[in-house]
Amino acid sequence: MTENTAYNTLEALFNKISNLNHLANMAHWDAATMMPPGGSEARGQALAEVSALVNELVSDNLTGELIEQAEQGKDLLSDWQQANLREMRRQWFNASCVTSELVKAQAVASSRCENAWRKLRAENNWQDFQPLLMEVVNLVREQAAMRSEASGLSAYDSLLELYEPGQRSNNIDRIFNQLKAFLPGFVENTVQRQAGETLIHPAGGFPERKQKALALELMEIVGFDFRHGRLDKSHHPFCGGVPDDVRLTTRYNEEDFTESLMGVLHETGHAKYEQGLPRDWRTQPVGRARGMGIHESQSLFQEMQVCRSLPFLRFAAPIMRKHLHNDATPAGCWDAENLFRLNNRVKPDYIRVNADEATYPLHVILRYEMEKDLIEGKLQVADIPEVWDQKMQEYLGLSTRDNYKDGCMQDIHWTHGMMGYFPTYTLGAMNAAQLYQAADKAIPGLAEMIGRGDFSALNEWQSKAIWSWGSYHGIDELMRQATGETLNPEHFIRHLQTRFAAD
Amino acid sequence: MTENTAYNTLEALFNKISNLNHLANMAHWDAATMMPPGGSEARGQALAEVSALVNELVSDNLTGELIEQAEQGKDLLSDWQQANLREMRRQWFNASCVTSELVKAQAVASSRCENAWRKLRAENNWQDFQPLLMEVVNLVREQAAMRSEASGLSAYDSLLELYEPGQRSNNIDRIFNQLKAFLPGFVENTVQRQAGETLIHPAGGFPERKQKALALELMEIVGFDFRHGRLDKSHHPFCGGVPDDVRLTTRYNEEDFTESLMGVLHETGHAKYEQGLPRDWRTQPVGRARGMGIHESQSLFQEMQVCRSLPFLRFAAPIMRKHLHNDATPAGCWDAENLFRLNNRVKPDYIRVNADEATYPLHVILRYEMEKDLIEGKLQVADIPEVWDQKMQEYLGLSTRDNYKDGCMQDIHWTHGMMGYFPTYTLGAMNAAQLYQAADKAIPGLAEMIGRGDFSALNEWQSKAIWSWGSYHGIDELMRQATGETLNPEHFIRHLQTRFAAD
Repeated sequence: MTENTAYNTLEALFNKISNLNHLANMAHWDAATMMPPGGSEARGQALAEVSALVNELVSDNLTGELIEQAEQGKDLLSDWQQANLREMRRQWFNASCVTSELVKAQAVASSRCENAWRKLRAENNWQDFQPLLMEVVNLVREQAAMRSEASGLSAYDSLLELYEPGQRSNNIDRIFNQLKAFLPGFVENTVQRQAGETLIHPAGGFPERKQKALALELMEIVGFDFRHGRLDKSHHPFCGGVPDDVRLTTRYNEEDFTESLMGVLHETGHAKYEQGLPRDWRTQPVGRARGMGIHESQSLFQEMQVCRSLPFLRFAAPIMRKHLHNDATPAGCWDAENLFRLNNRVKPDYIRVNADEATYPLHVILRYEMEKDLIEGKLQVADIPEVWDQKMQEYLGLSTRDNYKDGCMQDIHWTHGMMGYFPTYTLGAMNAAQLYQAADKAIPGLAEMIGRGDFSALNEWQSKAIWSWGSYHGIDELMRQATGETLNPEHFIRHLQTRFAAD
Repeated sequence: MTENTAYNTLEALFNKISNLNHLANMAHWDAATMMPPGGSEARGQALAEVSALVNELVSDNLTGELIEQAEQGKDLLSDWQQANLREMRRQWFNASCVTSELVKAQAVASSRCENAWRKLRAENNWQDFQPLLMEVVNLVREQAAMRSEASGLSAYDSLLELYEPGQRSNNIDRIFNQLKAFLPGFVENTVQRQAGETLIHPAGGFPERKQKALALELMEIVGFDFRHGRLDKSHHPFCGGVPDDVRLTTRYNEEDFTESLMGVLHETGHAKYEQGLPRDWRTQPVGRARGMGIHESQSLFQEMQVCRSLPFLRFAAPIMRKHLHNDATPAGCWDAENLFRLNNRVKPDYIRVNADEATYPLHVILRYEMEKDLIEGKLQVADIPEVWDQKMQEYLGLSTRDNYKDGCMQDIHWTHGMMGYFPTYTLGAMNAAQLYQAADKAIPGLAEMIGRGDFSALNEWQSKAIWSWGSYHGIDELMRQATGETLNPEHFIRHLQTRFAAD
């Protein structure tokens, strides 16, 4: 054998899958940004069709056989091809170890639960939501059992594996316990200290078109490539499309410009990762992003580590002022120090998506602990509101008693049957802090560069450390090569201590 | 047998094909309206993938066998199901009678020729274009031979069949000869008569956003359903998307608003046909539009029969004025009679797409005669410029000697290998005139209704006559049911005589 023909066949197959996913991604973006309301039914059917087709192609027995054959001729493959083959096996395994009946049943139950949720959440109606959620949770438990049976992992870890390959809950327990020991006290102290700060709030309304012009200017400066992407408006901001054509969205609050601006910069972090994935492997599994925790690290690197920092805000303040100043906004509002205080307020609140950097992990830990218990059968759906309330009181000093809307009914994840995903938000925040500190050591004068709006060295460092690797390395190895060690929560804790230190 | 299971399997298959086409159509629209330049390579690959996949599914042997089985149990099917089955056979036949090697060779040659054409046309360079076009024409001849072999039709008719099912060139010859006997003299007389007309030209610039507001208002009035479609901008105007979500595009010339406005209303005619296709059959072959000549009849019905008429312009004049008036445009410009004269000028010119209603068919006849001879081997590619020049002199009194750019290199159709398509433009114009005259007989006071901007009765008539039938009837039967006779060019001739009569 001089050629691994099974591998070549697999590359062609995954190229086809990538092309089909390209069309699906664009149709998803279109549905959220452009589509008139009457188009949604036909669109839903078209998207379901291609999703089933892709699932069929990946999970096919023949695909599994080809992978086995290709593995036997592994020595004929380059390192990248071998890594690609590993990722093919991972995708095949994840797709083939659940039955297509279960996939369909989950799609039906999730869609029913989600449709009801939109109405029931507004009504604060847990009673009617509970049985629908129970159906979803039961099916996720079934899914976890199938995956666990096939993988030998615990039920919860077998779900986690879908979003954060190689990560295990005993490791997350350890890391989150370190955070839990630190955060509640830190949050309390910071809130007390910040109570004495003077804030000058922007006012007077910020027209959408001006906010958009500001967003476009800053996106370009931090390195978004507009030849390969665009910015539009959608109800829920996201980063979609394909690496060659990244579709980023935001929404505008005309009373508060920071909401949209920091949202855009967050999504720009995701986008730069996608745009920076290895060009030669874009249509192959190894060319895709390395899990959700790394993806979130790139968005939080951009937003939290860079754009909410004082050096960046010093650079950006005159640009913000140029686009947004009006007579109702006091001039002092545009001082970098004021913008820094506005963008870094710590305040325990009910809603995760509105949370600041210091309280956010507590929201995540609450959900992680509960979903793990749900999957492992230690927590029943009926008991969710009570446990939620207890944990909110313990972690953030707030009660959600009888307030389902702002409590256990606030997120769409469980409604969707997406469990095992929540921890990646905080893994991402911790990765981001660790990566930034490594970049800061590697690049002399980094803060000064950021203060001048010069991102060339930083982008080059991120590209070499993360983006250009795609899924070549596992997560631990990727972090070790980039920072010298695997995920270590101390960097994140140090970041919070520095960011929220007294002046 | 109590159920035609083969037919049911086919319905599911064509439903899948329709879903895949949905995604391809949207990606095409996106490429023309939204996509950043760096996205085009990946998009091209994704579109080629789904197009090959669809072609594979339609032309599959199994599909052919299922059609045969389903035909044996035809008695178990409703009339619409039987018509659907006929259309399935037609699609299968058209897809399966050429080899996939030829399809690929044509795609490569067309794409090479088209890329070169963009540059060579600008340079008026026939010399370098000729060998590329020859390659394309040779492959089209091969395709025609394969289709002719399978269908028993003549080479040219077997291509015509793709765009205008059931139409034959001996019938077109007869009809076009009638037009050729009438048009050149009619054009000459009309030009002479119009030379004495006074025209008040709009001036002063018409900002894009005002033209768009006007277009949206008139689209809504004539019956475009914005719950199921939208208007955007593209370099080449088209009507795309799917019946549930029609994507219409235009471009704006800020010096001349009629160009975009009449273009939008033309595409709106296409769009209303798509939006009006039978709801229950949208994902099936029988639910699609009945050929290009009928499609073009609906756009020209809207544009030529309705919107360039004096009653419509009387209604629309104040709306145009409201959106577009500025100090540089003389008030008299907005008189309906002046707008009518501006929108109905006859002037022989080199370029087909800029041609008026009376000279347009002569452009089409020229191309039809030449492409028929090309396919039948009676004309060689090297002789195209000379024959083009002769015919332009004969039909329109213009010479294109050495002027390839505005002569035989002006269109993209042959470059693409699309032969057999040109006649549908003029078949459409003739169908439109015949349909409008039938509507005028069927709806008392139609001109007055149009003069008040009331399109409800007319849209209902068009829906019953054309839109709601999809591909249930053949073209002749569709026209017969709608107008009492098959295509008869006298209606079009009468329309031109009336429209361009002396005041």
